[in-house]
Amino acid sequence: MRMVHTMIRVRNLEETLEFYTGFLGLREVRRHEVPGDCTLVFLADEAGDYHIELTYNHDDRDYTLGNQFGHLAFVTDDLDKVIADVEGKSWWYRGSRPEMKSRYIFLNDPNGYDIEILESGQRS
Amino acid sequence: MRMVHTMIRVRNLEETLEFYTGFLGLREVRRHEVPGDCTLVFLADEAGDYHIELTYNHDDRDYTLGNQFGHLAFVTDDLDKVIADVEGKSWWYRGSRPEMKSRYIFLNDPNGYDIEILESGQRS
Repeated sequence: MRMVHTMIRVRNLEETLEFYTGFLGLREVRRHEVPGDCTLVFLADEAGDYHIELTYNHDDRDYTLGNQFGHLAFVTDDLDKVIADVEGKSWWYRGSRPEMKSRYIFLNDPNGYDIEILESGQRS
Repeated sequence: MRMVHTMIRVRNLEETLEFYTGFLGLREVRRHEVPGDCTLVFLADEAGDYHIELTYNHDDRDYTLGNQFGHLAFVTDDLDKVIADVEGKSWWYRGSRPEMKSRYIFLNDPNGYDIEILESGQRS
């Protein structure tokens, strides 16, 4: 069995795409419109082996995020540059716990999902 | 930025591992115990490029799953074999919508997360 994607429902497609493609640097690899129903957008990194599927339902329904789902994690070569970018945007984030060996930050995407960004050269 | 893992909080680690390694065929690639706090288990498929991180908190806290998070998706070479397996276990599942070109099923993992299993040779 191959792992192929993680699907998340999103509240605002343009803001979500700006976060995942603009800020995180993923690329849109496929889009599927179901008229009057939903828009599905698949995102990938350079390797492209795994996708994040964004589902944007057109009916303006509300969602409950809950506290069970965890987060999506990414690795960067330059965490300080990412932190400077986040601080420049005045976004909330929290840094690594002092007792942890790895360097990372957590922040939220525009839909409230937790996002972890780790510095490369460490275990994910 | 590389995509590295999706983290999900789980209610029962053994039942969850039986589902992801026994039923889905993933393998445990790393485990980290934080005594008195949590157990973290990383799962991968054969390619091993992307991980699912299971977080099992030891304090028996309850969770709210909500309805915003979507699903985790997998691809199999033999969907009929998977369906026979699911039916043999008497698990709930739903099949492809007739109007969709792809063949897939949806079912739930032991924590209530939606799981999609697609037949290979199709777009994910």
